[in-house]
Amino acid sequence: MSPAREIRLNAFDMACVGHIQHGMWTHPSDQSSGYTSLDRWVSLARLLERGMFDGLFLADIIGVYDVFGGTPAAALRSAAQIPLIDPLALVPAMAHATTHLSFGVTCNLAYEPPYLFARRMATLDHLTQGRIGWNIVTGALDSAARAMGFAQQMAHDDRYDFAEEFMRVVYALWEGGWKDDAVVRDRAGGVYTDPAKVRAIHHAGKQFRLDAVPLWEPSPQRTPVLYQAGASTRGRIFAARHAECVFVYGGNLPETTRLTADLRRRAGTRPLRIFPLASVVTGRTESEARDRLDEYRHHASMEGVLAHGSASLGVDLDRFGMDEPVDASASQAIQSNIEALAAALGPGWTKRNFIDNAILGGRQAPIVGSPSQVADTMQRWMAEADVDGFNLSRTVMPECLADFIELIVPVLQDRGVYKTAYRPGTYRQKLFGAGDRLPDGHPAAAERWVDRASGQ
Amino acid sequence: MSPAREIRLNAFDMACVGHIQHGMWTHPSDQSSGYTSLDRWVSLARLLERGMFDGLFLADIIGVYDVFGGTPAAALRSAAQIPLIDPLALVPAMAHATTHLSFGVTCNLAYEPPYLFARRMATLDHLTQGRIGWNIVTGALDSAARAMGFAQQMAHDDRYDFAEEFMRVVYALWEGGWKDDAVVRDRAGGVYTDPAKVRAIHHAGKQFRLDAVPLWEPSPQRTPVLYQAGASTRGRIFAARHAECVFVYGGNLPETTRLTADLRRRAGTRPLRIFPLASVVTGRTESEARDRLDEYRHHASMEGVLAHGSASLGVDLDRFGMDEPVDASASQAIQSNIEALAAALGPGWTKRNFIDNAILGGRQAPIVGSPSQVADTMQRWMAEADVDGFNLSRTVMPECLADFIELIVPVLQDRGVYKTAYRPGTYRQKLFGAGDRLPDGHPAAAERWVDRASGQ
Repeated sequence: MSPAREIRLNAFDMACVGHIQHGMWTHPSDQSSGYTSLDRWVSLARLLERGMFDGLFLADIIGVYDVFGGTPAAALRSAAQIPLIDPLALVPAMAHATTHLSFGVTCNLAYEPPYLFARRMATLDHLTQGRIGWNIVTGALDSAARAMGFAQQMAHDDRYDFAEEFMRVVYALWEGGWKDDAVVRDRAGGVYTDPAKVRAIHHAGKQFRLDAVPLWEPSPQRTPVLYQAGASTRGRIFAARHAECVFVYGGNLPETTRLTADLRRRAGTRPLRIFPLASVVTGRTESEARDRLDEYRHHASMEGVLAHGSASLGVDLDRFGMDEPVDASASQAIQSNIEALAAALGPGWTKRNFIDNAILGGRQAPIVGSPSQVADTMQRWMAEADVDGFNLSRTVMPECLADFIELIVPVLQDRGVYKTAYRPGTYRQKLFGAGDRLPDGHPAAAERWVDRASGQ
Repeated sequence: MSPAREIRLNAFDMACVGHIQHGMWTHPSDQSSGYTSLDRWVSLARLLERGMFDGLFLADIIGVYDVFGGTPAAALRSAAQIPLIDPLALVPAMAHATTHLSFGVTCNLAYEPPYLFARRMATLDHLTQGRIGWNIVTGALDSAARAMGFAQQMAHDDRYDFAEEFMRVVYALWEGGWKDDAVVRDRAGGVYTDPAKVRAIHHAGKQFRLDAVPLWEPSPQRTPVLYQAGASTRGRIFAARHAECVFVYGGNLPETTRLTADLRRRAGTRPLRIFPLASVVTGRTESEARDRLDEYRHHASMEGVLAHGSASLGVDLDRFGMDEPVDASASQAIQSNIEALAAALGPGWTKRNFIDNAILGGRQAPIVGSPSQVADTMQRWMAEADVDGFNLSRTVMPECLADFIELIVPVLQDRGVYKTAYRPGTYRQKLFGAGDRLPDGHPAAAERWVDRASGQ
């Protein structure tokens, strides 16, 4: 690893009050309850662009956390990802207020009609001028399935089979319906689009049937930048095939190193940008940072931790005694969460271990220290775990990001590991330094327009 | 009718190049091909707010116009509503740049999962601070059905049965899941939401099954302002039951008068705001307006008229000779279009009649004249047809709206029939002068939270 490897940063956020570090909204400085205000999101986007963050990564979940105690009461009280609004709607206002910041938005493909979903993402690719990414998730909650009219969610591996077919359909819609030069905009001749260069997409598969001309003209990236976050074995196979960026939740450095190595091995020569979750608490000095951690810890919500954790693990933690090993083997929930937790807490982990680990109301210990200490830790992760940057989880908002940008970004810049200006172009160009479009070997490329008659 | 009755105005637009007046994009001043630019939409919103328009009404269609000649070629060449992006994504950026302008957005309920759709609209109600309306459409194109995996669309009346059930589900999600005072935001006590005031919505119907807690907290209007535009008999029954605003396409003054009277009779004491389609071409003098009409007519696209018309009528006009009566009796398309056209062109109308009527590339003759002449015509429609204002169709953009605001709005204000300042509050408050919420007699009110135990 070169010591000068660039650190890329996303702010990891969600259109809700309590995201990962539960209870922080109760801190007097926290503004998370303003999540329905466009002014707040636009301010955040401008702050991130000042700090030259690569992206704002927005989580989403369909369904409420009702596994703990069998009710959503704990999630509601602690605002653990409920209330929650649609993250896609935040993007246009933030995109209009910024020039370079990109947006990675989580959408669960399990319940989206592919034609409408493809138009929605293509619309955002147009409106952001190519600054949109999609975090592909396949869903993990029975409560979501019930919201959509099913008795329970699909089994874990079936979700990935479904996802493979969904991806094929949306790739064809994004890449295959309009030839690159279909739009001519000839005012004098009265021809906007050459009909010979537009075709219907036909698909008759197990889950979807479709016979339709995509309504939208080609957008800058065609297919949005593809993120993926499922780190189970099946999830890693999917990520290695489809994803350009992977959001890994390893729990600790050794587990993250293992996940990253496995992902890179599976992806072969295809470059992946890999971002682990990180949560940073800093100050001008280590002592200031420790004081701040203590202050924040005072606001952590154990009820939020248990509500969120039970749902993420698919295990009702209310049924276990504090020192009883928690058995998650039968869960159909996100496998990577279960694996990462076992790696972080050790085999036979108990509810007490789980709670003790949730220092700030989340499931991973924060990086705490002076700016140079935090920079050291980030550089160590870059080198040892072979990651490309971090998805920075929020604590008290927006001061956690304002502090990071004021105190840590200059240190990283001084060390030559952080950009001092944005690269030009689309999100994909900024990430990989190449073109706007997915490379030829990607499965999306197989769905591209091919001239039928002439074979050009 | 009082002569001082206020005229309300919406700009009628669509996230595409060619909307109603086909071919106008070929005019050298026209900026419609900038429909993917957020800057353009934000400029439009600011222009409309300067002109104190009540709303921007955005059309949408899922599917391509492929009835004419059995292919989408004519629609593609003339850009007749293709390419077309998702209108909902335009709203947040425009809302952030304005304070009072409201947004009425068309969404076809036939293919939207109700839970996700309800969250999307509630999100926009939050982000716009209560300035969102939904134009309820049930779809009319076989090409849309094929995009969604069906062989053809539902029969006309079945679509309304489906719509009735869809409405019941989304009303329950918007109105019934969270009690008004469920959100307490108690930082000291660590309680964001009182779980006793949130409940799951249960629905087991013919089309939908659902058992879910709405994810979002109550938004300013809860249910968006409801628009409807179906003017067939079944459509009018639906509108009289659900709609607060109706967009009527009568074709001419007598037919509009008849439709409006019927709608008001069916709605009984419930107030409806009724907006006919109008297209205005003006200038400082009548002669300037006539010159401008001639100039615009030069750009009208008959190919666009026939592509759009064939799809809207569900009849391939390519199969008819110029002077052959067009038989639309077997069509499953939008009934009101067929009825309005027959009213405007007379029984036994031919393709020649249809084309001759499409002066600017649309299906309704424009209002042409000096500012005072246009104001006279608008006031005559207000009085005779008993309408509440107009949905102004665009011609050459944005000059058609800039002209209207510069020349006609001051005349209407001088006559005391146009506001000189916005009313405060949400879209619903501005429209009806009452509260933010739907009134008690509305079907949505039946889905509201009722305390079970105490009967409060």
